[in-house]
Amino acid sequence: MKSIGEIEKKSRSKGGHLFSEKLSIKNNTDFTSKYKAVRNISENICRPLKIEDYVVQPVVDVSPPKWHLGHTTWFFETFILKPYVNDYKEFNPDFNFVFNSYYESVGARVIRTDRGNLSRPTVEEVYHYRHYVDEAMESFLVQDITDDIKNILLLGLNHEQQHQELLYTDIKFILGHNPLFPAYNDKGIEDVQMQNNNEWISIDEGIYEIGFEGEGFCFDNELHRHKVYLQPYKISSRLVTNEEYLNFITTGGYEDFRYWHSEGWEWVKSNGIKSPLYWHLINDNWEVFTLKGLQNLDPKQPVTHINYYEATAFAAWKGMRLPTEAEWEVAASKFRWGKRWEWTDSAYLPYPGFTKAEGAIGEYNGKFMVNQWVLRGASVATSEGHSRTSYRNFFQTNLQWQFTGIRLAQ
Amino acid sequence: MKSIGEIEKKSRSKGGHLFSEKLSIKNNTDFTSKYKAVRNISENICRPLKIEDYVVQPVVDVSPPKWHLGHTTWFFETFILKPYVNDYKEFNPDFNFVFNSYYESVGARVIRTDRGNLSRPTVEEVYHYRHYVDEAMESFLVQDITDDIKNILLLGLNHEQQHQELLYTDIKFILGHNPLFPAYNDKGIEDVQMQNNNEWISIDEGIYEIGFEGEGFCFDNELHRHKVYLQPYKISSRLVTNEEYLNFITTGGYEDFRYWHSEGWEWVKSNGIKSPLYWHLINDNWEVFTLKGLQNLDPKQPVTHINYYEATAFAAWKGMRLPTEAEWEVAASKFRWGKRWEWTDSAYLPYPGFTKAEGAIGEYNGKFMVNQWVLRGASVATSEGHSRTSYRNFFQTNLQWQFTGIRLAQ
Amino acid sequence: MKSIGEIEKKSRSKGGHLFSEKLSIKNNTDFTSKYKAVRNISENICRPLKIEDYVVQPVVDVSPPKWHLGHTTWFFETFILKPYVNDYKEFNPDFNFVFNSYYESVGARVIRTDRGNLSRPTVEEVYHYRHYVDEAMESFLVQDITDDIKNILLLGLNHEQQHQELLYTDIKFILGHNPLFPAYNDKGIEDVQMQNNNEWISIDEGIYEIGFEGEGFCFDNELHRHKVYLQPYKISSRLVTNEEYLNFITTGGYEDFRYWHSEGWEWVKSNGIKSPLYWHLINDNWEVFTLKGLQNLDPKQPVTHINYYEATAFAAWKGMRLPTEAEWEVAASKFRWGKRWEWTDSAYLPYPGFTKAEGAIGEYNGKFMVNQWVLRGASVATSEGHSRTSYRNFFQTNLQWQFTGIRLAQ
Amino acid sequence: MKSIGEIEKKSRSKGGHLFSEKLSIKNNTDFTSKYKAVRNISENICRPLKIEDYVVQPVVDVSPPKWHLGHTTWFFETFILKPYVNDYKEFNPDFNFVFNSYYESVGARVIRTDRGNLSRPTVEEVYHYRHYVDEAMESFLVQDITDDIKNILLLGLNHEQQHQELLYTDIKFILGHNPLFPAYNDKGIEDVQMQNNNEWISIDEGIYEIGFEGEGFCFDNELHRHKVYLQPYKISSRLVTNEEYLNFITTGGYEDFRYWHSEGWEWVKSNGIKSPLYWHLINDNWEVFTLKGLQNLDPKQPVTHINYYEATAFAAWKGMRLPTEAEWEVAASKFRWGKRWEWTDSAYLPYPGFTKAEGAIGEYNGKFMVNQWVLRGASVATSEGHSRTSYRNFFQTNLQWQFTGIRLAQ
Repeated sequence: MKSIGEIEKKSRSKGGHLFSEKLSIKNNTDFTSKYKAVRNISENICRPLKIEDYVVQPVVDVSPPKWHLGHTTWFFETFILKPYVNDYKEFNPDFNFVFNSYYESVGARVIRTDRGNLSRPTVEEVYHYRHYVDEAMESFLVQDITDDIKNILLLGLNHEQQHQELLYTDIKFILGHNPLFPAYNDKGIEDVQMQNNNEWISIDEGIYEIGFEGEGFCFDNELHRHKVYLQPYKISSRLVTNEEYLNFITTGGYEDFRYWHSEGWEWVKSNGIKSPLYWHLINDNWEVFTLKGLQNLDPKQPVTHINYYEATAFAAWKGMRLPTEAEWEVAASKFRWGKRWEWTDSAYLPYPGFTKAEGAIGEYNGKFMVNQWVLRGASVATSEGHSRTSYRNFFQTNLQWQFTGIRLAQ
Repeated sequence: MKSIGEIEKKSRSKGGHLFSEKLSIKNNTDFTSKYKAVRNISENICRPLKIEDYVVQPVVDVSPPKWHLGHTTWFFETFILKPYVNDYKEFNPDFNFVFNSYYESVGARVIRTDRGNLSRPTVEEVYHYRHYVDEAMESFLVQDITDDIKNILLLGLNHEQQHQELLYTDIKFILGHNPLFPAYNDKGIEDVQMQNNNEWISIDEGIYEIGFEGEGFCFDNELHRHKVYLQPYKISSRLVTNEEYLNFITTGGYEDFRYWHSEGWEWVKSNGIKSPLYWHLINDNWEVFTLKGLQNLDPKQPVTHINYYEATAFAAWKGMRLPTEAEWEVAASKFRWGKRWEWTDSAYLPYPGFTKAEGAIGEYNGKFMVNQWVLRGASVATSEGHSRTSYRNFFQTNLQWQFTGIRLAQ
Repeated sequence: MKSIGEIEKKSRSKGGHLFSEKLSIKNNTDFTSKYKAVRNISENICRPLKIEDYVVQPVVDVSPPKWHLGHTTWFFETFILKPYVNDYKEFNPDFNFVFNSYYESVGARVIRTDRGNLSRPTVEEVYHYRHYVDEAMESFLVQDITDDIKNILLLGLNHEQQHQELLYTDIKFILGHNPLFPAYNDKGIEDVQMQNNNEWISIDEGIYEIGFEGEGFCFDNELHRHKVYLQPYKISSRLVTNEEYLNFITTGGYEDFRYWHSEGWEWVKSNGIKSPLYWHLINDNWEVFTLKGLQNLDPKQPVTHINYYEATAFAAWKGMRLPTEAEWEVAASKFRWGKRWEWTDSAYLPYPGFTKAEGAIGEYNGKFMVNQWVLRGASVATSEGHSRTSYRNFFQTNLQWQFTGIRLAQ
Repeated sequence: MKSIGEIEKKSRSKGGHLFSEKLSIKNNTDFTSKYKAVRNISENICRPLKIEDYVVQPVVDVSPPKWHLGHTTWFFETFILKPYVNDYKEFNPDFNFVFNSYYESVGARVIRTDRGNLSRPTVEEVYHYRHYVDEAMESFLVQDITDDIKNILLLGLNHEQQHQELLYTDIKFILGHNPLFPAYNDKGIEDVQMQNNNEWISIDEGIYEIGFEGEGFCFDNELHRHKVYLQPYKISSRLVTNEEYLNFITTGGYEDFRYWHSEGWEWVKSNGIKSPLYWHLINDNWEVFTLKGLQNLDPKQPVTHINYYEATAFAAWKGMRLPTEAEWEVAASKFRWGKRWEWTDSAYLPYPGFTKAEGAIGEYNGKFMVNQWVLRGASVATSEGHSRTSYRNFFQTNLQWQFTGIRLAQ
C-alpha cells in the first residue's frame, strides 16, 4: 500500500514489459469499461459520507477521503493525459501541488500544509476534477493506444484500487476516532465468521518456487519467480479469533514483557496499549468500533487491527510463530485466505534477481524496502480481483489501522 | 481572548455583582434583542464559508469555525438553560464533551481527539444546535430573570463576541494557509489607511488612574481602578505602517540579533522567519494575504500580524520602545486607536487590589496571568462595542495570528 | 543569574560610567586582593568534588562545574587580557569556543556539542588555565588601570560571583540526581531556622522610590531609581516553612487545579509533580536531599526549590499572594531577608527610563526581559556582599533548581 | 552487539547445552586464564583515557566507558557470584541499579537518570568493584564447576568482548565529538589498506548450508544450521574504499534521491548529511577523525562509519547491491573479511527452526529481531577470536558509529 510512490515513478516508463509479459486486457473497449468500473467504485465508497468526513486527517497515515479522490485522478491526468493527449487542458495547475503525493518541487510561494488542513479545493471541486478527467480519458481510450500506455493505464487502475482500500481504512479511522462514533453504513462489511476448528496444514521440507508467474498484471516486487528452500512446517487453516485474542489479553498478555519484541514493549508502555485498535471496554463489556458503529465483540470473528508487535506477541504467548512469506505463499492453495491482511515474519526485501528497469522507472525501485514487514492475502477492504497469491503488501511494524489479522505457524 | 476559561468558570457565580455594579441593560426586551443581535453576528461571519472551511484546524491555536459556533452555544445551554430552566431537554449529551473547552472530565470511553479531527457533528447539526438553544433562550428571556442570570447572560454575550473575533482570525489562518489562497469575501475588511504624519503626544510625570470605572460590563482583570505613577513619556499618534516595517526588513532587521530578545532571536532562527505572517515575496514583489485574497503590500496600512518579539525588535531598531499598558491607557484619549491590537511592554498581571470572588467564581481568577503580554485597543475583527479604554487583551509573546500592530513610545 | 550574556556584552564598553558613578574600590592594591579573594572562592567551592563531578550536565540549565571555572576565566582573558595586555599570549585558542557562553561564531570544523558531552579539556587543564590567567591578571593589576578597565574588572568579579552561586546549585543538582545520593560536604550550608511566629508588616499607600542609588556597583537593570505608587499592603516577616508547605501538600494542593495558573497546572500534570524538587517520600517519611545528603525534612526550615507556579499556588491556597518587586523593595528594610531567593509577582521588565548605552554595550540590554519573573533577596548560595536591596534576580517560571523560597503578601 | 539483553537473560539457564554441545575449554585452569585475559583487555582498552573520558555520554547509543566496565562486572556478580557462591558479599547493592542494563524494577526512591549524568560511582570505585569481583571469581574458579556455570561463564566472557568493541566505538565517538579532537593513542588501530584490484567471486546457484556448526561457543541466533537456496551471484573480494566513496560524494550522491531508500533520504535531508560520520571538509581538504586524531583522508582505506542507508545508496549508485547474509556466509571462505562490519541486505530475523529454551532462558529470544539489519564479518575493534563466519551482528539501519563498511554484490 505504501508502494504508491514506487508505482508513480514506474508509470514514467517508456518501453518494455514492466509488470508482466502479456496484458490480460486486449482491447480498448475492455479498457474503457474497466476504467469506468474502477473509477466508479471509488465514488461509491464515498457515497455514505458527509462533506465534513472528506476533509479531516486525524493522524499522518490517514489521508482525507477527498485527497484520495483527487490524487488518483491526478495520476491519470499527470501520466496519461498531459504527456499523451496533445490538446489536453489541465484542470487546474495548482492541483498538481495539492494532489501530488510528493512535495519535492514545492515553489517559493507555496505554504506547506498537512493534507488535513486543506479546506479547499472543496469536495464538489474534487468531483468536478474527477469527471473532467474521466471524460478526457474516455475520449482518449476510443483511440488505439500503445502497450506503454496500456501499462500505465493498468498501473493507474491498480493504484486506484489500492486507494480504495485506503479509503475504507481511513474512513473507519476518521469515524472511529470521533467521540460520537458515527456508523459508515449498516452493511457489516467487516463481518467474517471463522470456522470453529483450526487445522494444521503440514508442508514438507524441500525446494519450492515463489513469486508471480502467468499472465496479467503484477507489481515488480513480486518478480521474479524463484526457488526457496523450506524446512518442514505447519500452518494454521484459519485466522486467530477475537476469542483467542481476548484470552491473551485477560491472561495478561499486554503486561508481560516476555512475549514482546523490545521495540514492541516500548510501544505498549509508552502508548498505554491494552487491546487492539477500536476495542473499548465499556462497563466491563468489550465493544468494537466497526463500519456499522460500536458493536459487541464477536468472539468468532478474526482479531483485526493489530500491528506486527501484537501479532508476534500473541504467537509467542501461544508458543508458536508467524509464517514467513515464502511459507505462506507455498501453503496458500491449501487454505482459504481469511479476509484480513496477514502479518508474516518476513521483512520487505527485494526478491533475488530483482532488477531495475532502465531510465526513470527503476530509480525508485525498492525505496520502501527497509524497516517494513510483509503482509499477505487480502482484506475485506481490498478491491475484488486486486490481490493474488504472490501479492506482497507491506507496512511499518507499529501500524494498526489496516484490516490486519494473524495466521499462526509452527 | 484567552480568558475564555476564566469566563466560563465565573459564570457559575451564584450571587453578587461580579463585573460591574450596574447593568446597562435594564429589561428583558433589551436582553432579547441584544441576544438575537449578538448571536446573529456569529452566523453572519460564517456565511461566506464553504462547509469544508468550518472543519479544519491547521494549528492548535486556530479552532475550526464550527467549533466556535458550537462552543458559544454550549455556553448558554450549560450555564443558563440547564441550571435555570426546569424542563429543559439537553440537545445532545455528547455535545458537552465536544464543545466544552476543557477536558478534565473525560470519561473512559471517549477517545481524545483534536478539534480539527472531528468531522461530526456536521455543520448542519451545529446550526440545528444553535437554533434549538436560541429558541429555548428566547422563551426563557420572556420571563423575569435575576441579576445573577443577567450577569451570566452578559458574560455569555461578551464571550460570544470574543469568539467572533477568533472566527475572523481563524478563518483568515485557514484560508491563508491553503495553497490556493482563497478569498473570504471582497470587502477589504482589514483596510485601514494610516495618516502620513506621525505626531508625538507628550504626557507629564505624575500620578494617574487606570482601570475600569463607570457603568456597564467589564472583565474582572480591568478592576479595580487604581493609581499609578508615570514618568514623563511620549507616545505615537498612529501605528507603524507596512512601509516603515518593510524598511526594518530590508535593512536586515531579521538578521541582526541585537534588536531581539534572546527568546525572540531563537524563534526567528529556528523558524526561519523573515517577515510578518501572511507576507509573501513573489517574484521580488511583496504580497500579503488578506481576507480578500493575496494583495500587493499597501505601504500606508498598519503593519499587522506581528508578535511581541517582532514588535519589540522593530522598536529597538528605531531606538524606541513600546508603551506600558498604563502609559497606553492614560494617553488613549489623545489618539485614535488604530484598528489593530497594540502590543504593550506589560506582562499580564493582576491589578493591585485584584480580589477573588467567593466560591467557585474566584477559583480561576488570574489563571492566565503568567507568561502572557498585554495588548490594548481593538482590531478590525473586534465586535462593535466590545472593547474600551480599560480593556486588557493578552496573548503569548510568540503568536502572530491576531490582528496585532505596533504603537511606539519613547 | 541569566544576565550573564548581558554582562559580557556590556564589558566591551569603552568609556563612561556604566554601572555606577563612583567605584567603591579606589586603588590597585584593593583590586588585586579583591580579585584574588573572589577567584579563590570559586576554587574553594569545588574542593570537595571528585573529578567526575566536574564533568556532567544532567539537564540543560545545569552546567558542569569545570565549565563554570573555565568560563569565568575566559571572561577575564577575553575582555581584559586580550584587549589590554599587549604581549599577552592566549592560553589556547580553542578554549574561546569551549568556554564562550554563546555559539554564534562557530566555525565549519567544529561539531556542536552540549557542555556535558565534553570530557576535554580535563579538570587539570582548566585549573592550569585559571592559574595562567590569574598570573597574567595579577601582573596587570600592578599597573595603573583606567576607569573603563576598572568597570570591566568589577563586572568580571560580580560575574564570577554569580557563577559561584550557580556552582552550588548545579553541584547540588548533579549529586541530588545521582541514585547514590552522595553528600557534597557535612556542613549543612543550607540550614536556616525560621522564627516560629510570622508577623505582618503593614505599608501605607503612597509614592515610593525603588531602584539602585548610592555608591558601588550595580547592574543596569536596577537603574534608574524611580517613583512608584503603591496601594496599602501587608508583607510577611518571614518565609514560608516546610511545615506550612507540607500542609499544602497533604491537603491536596498538587491535585487541585483551582490554586494553579493554567500553565502551572499543565506542568504539574505532565511531569507528575507531587512535591518540591529534592523531596522524597521514603517509607512514608519525607526526606530531602541537601548538600550534606538525604536528611529528614526539617519542618522549621524555609521551603526551598519551588518554582513560581508552586509559589503562587501555595499563596492562592492560603488566600494570599506574592509581593510585587516594588512592594518587596519598599518593605525590605523592615524584615530580615530569608536565605532564599524570593519569588515576586513581577515580570522581569525594564525600569522606566532604562536607557541603552552607546555602542556595543547597549546592544544586548533587555534581551532577557521577556517571560521571566523577578526574584528578590539572596540565598545561602549567594556570595557575601553580592546582593543588595535593589538587586533583581530573574528566572523562568518553571525552574526549581535555585534556592528559592516564598514570602507572602496580602 | 545489541544482544546483550538477550545474553543476560539466557545466563539464568539452569541446565542443558545452551549454545553448543561441546565446550572448547575443558578445565578450570583454562577458564581462569581465559577469564583473566578477557577481563584484562577491557582495562587495557581504557588505559589511555583521562578520568573525564570515562564519564560522558554524548548520545544515547554511546555509553560512558566506566559504565561498560561496571556493567560487565555486574554480569559476573549477578549471574555467577550471587547465585552460586554461598558466602558472597555483594560489593554495593546500589550498583545493581546503576549497572543493570534494564530498569524495569526501579524502586520508588530512585531517580531515573541517563548514564552520562552519573558522576558517581567514581572511576576509582568502579575499578575497586572490578577487582573485588575478579578476586571472588578467581577463588571460585579453583573449584569444580558445573557445565551450566561454564556456559554462563563463557557467555559472560563473550559478553565482555562485545563491550570491548563498544568501548572502542564509544571512546571514538566521545573524543571525535569533542571540539579539541583529542587522540586516543598514536597506534593507528584502524588502518587497513585495501588491495587495489577488486575481483568478483562467482557462486553457483544451488542449495547451501548456513549457520553455526562445530565445537565451541556460539550465540543462539546462529542456530540451527540449515539449507538455503541461492541464485547465482557475484561478490566482491574486497571492501569499498574511501576513494570510491568519495567519488559517490563528489558526483552528488548525497543530493540525489534516486539512490536512497525513502527513509534514508529523510535521514539525509533532516540531518543535513553530506559525508560519513567523522569526515570533515577543512579548507577544501577531507580530514577524518580516527583514534589517532584528525588525519587526511586515506583513499585506499575502506570507507567506514556509514549506515545501512549510505551503504545501499552507494551500491545503487554503482548499479549493484549488498549481499544477503546467506550469500555472504556461503562465499566467506573465498575472500578475506575486511576489518569492518559489513552491512548485508538481510533483516535480522530468526533462522528456521530457531527454538526457545525452556524456562527463563528463552523468554527474551528474538526480542531484537525486528527493524534491525544484519552485519557480517568483524571490525578492527572486535576482540580476537570473538567472531566467526556464522556470527550475526545487527544494528538499526540509521546508526553509523560502529566500524562498518561495504562489500558489494551483483
